[in-house]
Amino acid sequence: MTGKVLERESLHACLDSPVMGSITFLNEVMGRFPDAISFAPGAPHTAFFDDIDIPLHIARYRRYLEEERSLTPAQVDRLLYQYGPSRGLINELVAQALRTDHGIDVPEESVVVTVGCQEAILLVLRTLFTSSRDLLAVANPCFVGLTGAANLLGIDTVAVDDTEECLDFAQLDEVCRRARASGSRIRAMYVAPDFSNPSGSRLGLAARHRLLAVAEREDFLLLEDNAYAFTATDAAALPPLKALPGGERVVHLGTFAKTCMPGARVGYAVADQPVRQPSGGIGLLADELATVKSMVTVNTSPISQAVIGGILLQHRGSVAEAARAKSELYQRNLRVLLHALDRHLGEGARAPAGVSWNRPRGGFFVRLRLTVPADEPLLERSAKEFGVLWTPMSHFYIGSGGDHQLRLACSYLDPEQIEEGVHRLARLLRAVCP
Amino acid sequence: MTGKVLERESLHACLDSPVMGSITFLNEVMGRFPDAISFAPGAPHTAFFDDIDIPLHIARYRRYLEEERSLTPAQVDRLLYQYGPSRGLINELVAQALRTDHGIDVPEESVVVTVGCQEAILLVLRTLFTSSRDLLAVANPCFVGLTGAANLLGIDTVAVDDTEECLDFAQLDEVCRRARASGSRIRAMYVAPDFSNPSGSRLGLAARHRLLAVAEREDFLLLEDNAYAFTATDAAALPPLKALPGGERVVHLGTFAKTCMPGARVGYAVADQPVRQPSGGIGLLADELATVKSMVTVNTSPISQAVIGGILLQHRGSVAEAARAKSELYQRNLRVLLHALDRHLGEGARAPAGVSWNRPRGGFFVRLRLTVPADEPLLERSAKEFGVLWTPMSHFYIGSGGDHQLRLACSYLDPEQIEEGVHRLARLLRAVCP
Repeated sequence: MTGKVLERESLHACLDSPVMGSITFLNEVMGRFPDAISFAPGAPHTAFFDDIDIPLHIARYRRYLEEERSLTPAQVDRLLYQYGPSRGLINELVAQALRTDHGIDVPEESVVVTVGCQEAILLVLRTLFTSSRDLLAVANPCFVGLTGAANLLGIDTVAVDDTEECLDFAQLDEVCRRARASGSRIRAMYVAPDFSNPSGSRLGLAARHRLLAVAEREDFLLLEDNAYAFTATDAAALPPLKALPGGERVVHLGTFAKTCMPGARVGYAVADQPVRQPSGGIGLLADELATVKSMVTVNTSPISQAVIGGILLQHRGSVAEAARAKSELYQRNLRVLLHALDRHLGEGARAPAGVSWNRPRGGFFVRLRLTVPADEPLLERSAKEFGVLWTPMSHFYIGSGGDHQLRLACSYLDPEQIEEGVHRLARLLRAVCP
Repeated sequence: MTGKVLERESLHACLDSPVMGSITFLNEVMGRFPDAISFAPGAPHTAFFDDIDIPLHIARYRRYLEEERSLTPAQVDRLLYQYGPSRGLINELVAQALRTDHGIDVPEESVVVTVGCQEAILLVLRTLFTSSRDLLAVANPCFVGLTGAANLLGIDTVAVDDTEECLDFAQLDEVCRRARASGSRIRAMYVAPDFSNPSGSRLGLAARHRLLAVAEREDFLLLEDNAYAFTATDAAALPPLKALPGGERVVHLGTFAKTCMPGARVGYAVADQPVRQPSGGIGLLADELATVKSMVTVNTSPISQAVIGGILLQHRGSVAEAARAKSELYQRNLRVLLHALDRHLGEGARAPAGVSWNRPRGGFFVRLRLTVPADEPLLERSAKEFGVLWTPMSHFYIGSGGDHQLRLACSYLDPEQIEEGVHRLARLLRAVCP
């Protein structure tokens, strides 16, 4: 390694976003305490990897192309091995699953298959945001992938606090008013209505209707990330924003990472908004996203798409069915976590004062509130003396906030680990909380 | 499809880059004349798809992980099916191939595995370009993926004409001088030294040394795209910029699309430049690229990486060996194309006046110069009356230029098609050239 040393300050500012430093710190802590029980990673559980059979999934998708789409084996080879359309190959299957599982009824032309939900976010932001006057409203705290993509593109974000069942709508009104007053505008708002990462919050049905009404009144688009919707029990499921009246304003974003497998790196955007072309003709916003995708990754690997296509076909085109056992495992883990919190930190359990948490009915995450700062020194002590890891919630806040909160992820652990981890966490909190 | 119509003008300007309209036009013409012989697509030949065996390639990579890296089958499952590191999984194999094939000797830590070369380009541009004072110099005409990524990020490009064996160095000097005079600077220059897309030009050895010297003097980085280097015969191979003295200034970019298969969507960036961190420690530019990647696609599909890893292992870690038969086929196609041009358009063949072409010794492309405009009306007539398609070279020019040139791609065709296609092209040119 020789040559001129580049200064980090001379590189793009998105590298300096606090969240990246935080992730580095967290990885570093996890590396130093490999035996600690970690509530940090929100990764899918590995129990389901036994069900994955790549050759079988691909073979099923091949058969579908040959039998249902009447392609010859050579044509199938070309589809899987050659460059492919930027918009994707399995769009029809994705559209079908959205209809079956969520009542989202859109033509397959409005679907763009992406390299995970992350690329979908990037494409939508790039396409919609054109000037520094365009602001992105964000339910706060927020998924770091959204913040990262906005930083990468130099898009300014404005925060709207999320609460357990709702957004702070008064704050949203104020944010819109202030934007107008300063000659800016809210171009879009990002929300994960179902058990968001990191807070586990969920938008109730009334709040969903209200948010759609605000979007209509203030003329902005909603970017709906449905990553964790599949973890709701059937009885508790709420319709996505996209399926409600006013859903024309919603660009729906999703991933197969949690429902099928992360390693395929397949996600999607649904963008059926009409776009008037310079020629006068009408296209879809999805067409524009596909064009931007041609400048980012060209197309999503057809091999990866074939894997996901095969899994969908195996489950009669339903993501919900493909993910039923997973949803049940995550539901169970969440129950175990909440019970353990009750037992070790609830009333009558020598609970330290002022410790509280929300009670999500789905998703991977629980938000714990303390009376002391949940910061890096506390995390260091937690790892070193008590053998338990978690994520400071401040990592996920736009601007400042969340200093006294932490995120517990239960997706990756087994019940005994969750139980023991909460036990350790309770010991830490009894030691540090006044 | 209901709701408010978005105006295309209200979306990001990268959608309006002329090249996107051109691609749409070209696809539309190809759609209307499916029986025309098309010299337009620069896609890999499908002959090699018979050799692709996804389960076998993945199994070979699995075995490598188990036997050479001593991982258990469960650990391998986790590596292939779970989220993975942004920098990649097969970095060691990529670094080994670069050493074996090109004499590029870099640590595996300097490699980032990307979703095709396109993502590598985007990551490098995003990381390096921070202000509107940073200009990207580009060998002109230029690969549309580079132009697209620059437009997406709002990076201004300045063109430097390529010539058959060289760049216009006087123009490059002038470009640097003017940038300085206006308070800007050339931050980096993009070149594809070996048989570039679209012109087929190749930088001679002296020009490579000279370019490295200019980069040193003017203090900019070179972004070297080696997509077509593998098509050179062994006897004709030239060392990449990255392997020459001064190569510390080179970020080397590549793809396995042409050498292995497009459908895996795997490429890479080699960025061993040292970066001083705010903490004072020294990292690699590759680390920064990986951080930016976490905001674009998170990580490249491990399944896709396993496919490419398996193919590399099958050929003793050498891309050159994996691609030998492909290189031979493209060499043959190029010979057939040049012979056909000689026969149908050369001296003594009732050749229309002023038609000339270059004679690349590798790559997929030949540049043909006419005395009449090689524009869309001519392409329309070419397709309709003569049954042959090609790409107007003006599509690839930064700014104006190339109006009287066209690109012929020979990678995707068979010899008889090339022969017949040139025959048809000659009839067109005899009809339109004065």
